[in-house]
Amino acid sequence: MDNALHYAKQHQQDYQNQLIDLLKIPSVSTDSAYAKEVKRAGEWVVADMQRIGLTAELIKTNRHPLVYGEWLGAGDDKPTVLFYGHYDVQPAMLADGWDHEPFDPIEKDGFLYARGASDDKGQFLIHLKAVESILKSDGTLPVNVKFIIEGEEESGGESIESYVINHSDRLQADAVVVSDTSMATTNEPVIVVALRGGTKMELHVSGPKSDLHSGSYGGVVHNPAQALAEIISKLHDADGRITVPGFYDDVKQLTADERAAIAQVKYDEDELYAETGVPQSWGEPDFTILERIGARPTLEVTGIAGGYYGEGFKTVIPQKAIAKLSCRLVANQDPAKIFALLEKHIKNITPSTVKSELIYLGSGRWASMDIDNPVMQSAVQAYKNGWGYEPVFMREGGSIPIVAHMQENIGAPVVMMGFGLNTDSLHAPNEHFSIDHFHRGIQTSIHFMYEISK
Amino acid sequence: MDNALHYAKQHQQDYQNQLIDLLKIPSVSTDSAYAKEVKRAGEWVVADMQRIGLTAELIKTNRHPLVYGEWLGAGDDKPTVLFYGHYDVQPAMLADGWDHEPFDPIEKDGFLYARGASDDKGQFLIHLKAVESILKSDGTLPVNVKFIIEGEEESGGESIESYVINHSDRLQADAVVVSDTSMATTNEPVIVVALRGGTKMELHVSGPKSDLHSGSYGGVVHNPAQALAEIISKLHDADGRITVPGFYDDVKQLTADERAAIAQVKYDEDELYAETGVPQSWGEPDFTILERIGARPTLEVTGIAGGYYGEGFKTVIPQKAIAKLSCRLVANQDPAKIFALLEKHIKNITPSTVKSELIYLGSGRWASMDIDNPVMQSAVQAYKNGWGYEPVFMREGGSIPIVAHMQENIGAPVVMMGFGLNTDSLHAPNEHFSIDHFHRGIQTSIHFMYEISK
Repeated sequence: MDNALHYAKQHQQDYQNQLIDLLKIPSVSTDSAYAKEVKRAGEWVVADMQRIGLTAELIKTNRHPLVYGEWLGAGDDKPTVLFYGHYDVQPAMLADGWDHEPFDPIEKDGFLYARGASDDKGQFLIHLKAVESILKSDGTLPVNVKFIIEGEEESGGESIESYVINHSDRLQADAVVVSDTSMATTNEPVIVVALRGGTKMELHVSGPKSDLHSGSYGGVVHNPAQALAEIISKLHDADGRITVPGFYDDVKQLTADERAAIAQVKYDEDELYAETGVPQSWGEPDFTILERIGARPTLEVTGIAGGYYGEGFKTVIPQKAIAKLSCRLVANQDPAKIFALLEKHIKNITPSTVKSELIYLGSGRWASMDIDNPVMQSAVQAYKNGWGYEPVFMREGGSIPIVAHMQENIGAPVVMMGFGLNTDSLHAPNEHFSIDHFHRGIQTSIHFMYEISK
Repeated sequence: MDNALHYAKQHQQDYQNQLIDLLKIPSVSTDSAYAKEVKRAGEWVVADMQRIGLTAELIKTNRHPLVYGEWLGAGDDKPTVLFYGHYDVQPAMLADGWDHEPFDPIEKDGFLYARGASDDKGQFLIHLKAVESILKSDGTLPVNVKFIIEGEEESGGESIESYVINHSDRLQADAVVVSDTSMATTNEPVIVVALRGGTKMELHVSGPKSDLHSGSYGGVVHNPAQALAEIISKLHDADGRITVPGFYDDVKQLTADERAAIAQVKYDEDELYAETGVPQSWGEPDFTILERIGARPTLEVTGIAGGYYGEGFKTVIPQKAIAKLSCRLVANQDPAKIFALLEKHIKNITPSTVKSELIYLGSGRWASMDIDNPVMQSAVQAYKNGWGYEPVFMREGGSIPIVAHMQENIGAPVVMMGFGLNTDSLHAPNEHFSIDHFHRGIQTSIHFMYEISK
């Protein structure tokens, strides 16, 4: 193991350059205009795996390809670890507020700035570089490894979902490692033990058959942009509670022990203000901030558009207006049931002066992890020795739908080893990843493979 | 006069081809990317005036040029008519729902389809072609004529406003003719006797310093798109009345006579449904549809945008969301006072979890016209003889701010001779103008010039 740890330290600059190469590829999966770039990123990962000594291939899907790689030379008596990650990224443009081109990485103050640096290219590459360090220094690994790296995590993830269901034999493992989450701080590594699920929807509100002159029809036709706003305003009460009847019915209530565990993580309003810049926090008053993020469901307007919003002014009553809506769901909410409740509620509150339609765009299940299994304990030990700090167990507000699918189909414990930071600006301008975290992550991953092989 | 009427009929195809030429120029004044095209349209009008025999020039302004043309050969003992129009147009793109390229005019079923066909290129050209018909057939005109054709009517109109105020001497006239309004039907020509004014604003609602991951911060940060919707929802009550305190205070109430006059115009809910396709009408229940359009103020959301609304999905809490707001104002509302009331109200209803700002983008005053003066009666006679039907007097919901400025600075009666139809799809896809109306308009304008010279 010491050879590998040493090898990784000697090759820090090489590894970092490789990450920069991968970050230069704008693998934006949600926009079909970038499909070729997404594929190019997948090919980059396959080529890197092959160079390291893994058997690897690009698996064709209905949309973006999956990357699969494996090294099974440790033998049947050694455990098999399946690493999951994603090589696709969120959209990013200079005009969104970036200080530099988002796909032209820059190094500044110990961070790499680029779209995908933390989410998730920098994180999954940690494990591939850990494998490289062991293989190159010892010629073998203490465990068998499999990698499944997808290209649609930021835009649905249907392909990996169907692959995990239909090819679960190929993905069988004794442990699944997912690195797509954040630490509290550098000195407080986090293993996530709960993830929110989600449902994505689009709400269309329409009125006239085409845009109308606001002078000729203002005051006699219900403006669809206004009607959309009125419908959205009825989805939460003044305290931030969701008003959709039945929405909270299946939510697993927190026990006193769980609330106590959450309360142990240090995080207060001031930290929220520093991170986000909001003038005041918001949301269900009966729950703390971390409870709201980790254990309560939400309903968000992720996008809204209607009429003319470009330079200048167009005095129209728009033909229609749309909102993109996203629910974050927790145990034991069923995404299909939640969609049906929302659809019914929106139908009920749509006035007869306009028409509305709620369109289902996809969903993912919540997940929760048992903290008492040996895989989890190996990860704890790996952080202690490789990172230098013991990790805390935390509930995560985000969604990684594939985790629930892997739990159901692979049957191995999932351990979510996060190496990013909450402050990495995920899904936002100026995303970045700590270079120190990247290299300490590689050390931690090396420790993990030796720990679990014991 | 008969020579001129005959000449116009003989040259219908030429006049129509000239209108098509002008419609091919995408003179979209609100988008600075089209500035050269706007200027090109102005130059086209100047060249056409010069060809006809007018003295004409392009007048430079801070934004788009004004076109001024005159023929003063009738002598001081003859009245002077000032014709106003605008050669700029609303934005238009195939993607908005047009059946063909909006600046590649097509003729279909007796209509010319193109952006600007009815609003206002087709309408102002009527008077220029009337002048051409008289000059070419008789070598002289029965009145002196002046034309002021602006290029910013669809985007603020600051340049003509300042020109009318600062060069009112050059524009002195005995009658002002404005053709930028609609008839009820072909057999019911309309002279508009009231115009709504307006105020344009942009409402910005912001929260976090950048877009946030909706998983990491959903439920603890007030979503600005949602907050914007909540603010907009509080600007009207359930019946469509504006809730801004003081908004209606200065509105001149309709007299029983005025209500009776409005009630004489045949227009019912079924016509509204046929024209617009809306499932049900909307608005202040105490007023009829035509009262609401002609005599009541409104507050419209002409555009709304925030977050990610393109293809796919982006799970963000947007940093900010914006709405473009437009008020239509009636006698005796003051645009500046209305803006101040709205600004105060929005400040009051903005929750402490977000920040809001209302930005003033410009305004125009309402106008009302006296129906008993000789200019108005000449127009009535011109419709009777040139069009074949007597016009009705109507209140118009739209705004033509320059009318109030001309009333104040030129001191001549303004007569609004509309030649378009409500169904011309103004400011909407597939705008069109009746070819028959174009030619009958020319006949009517010829009659008007002879009527007023008597």
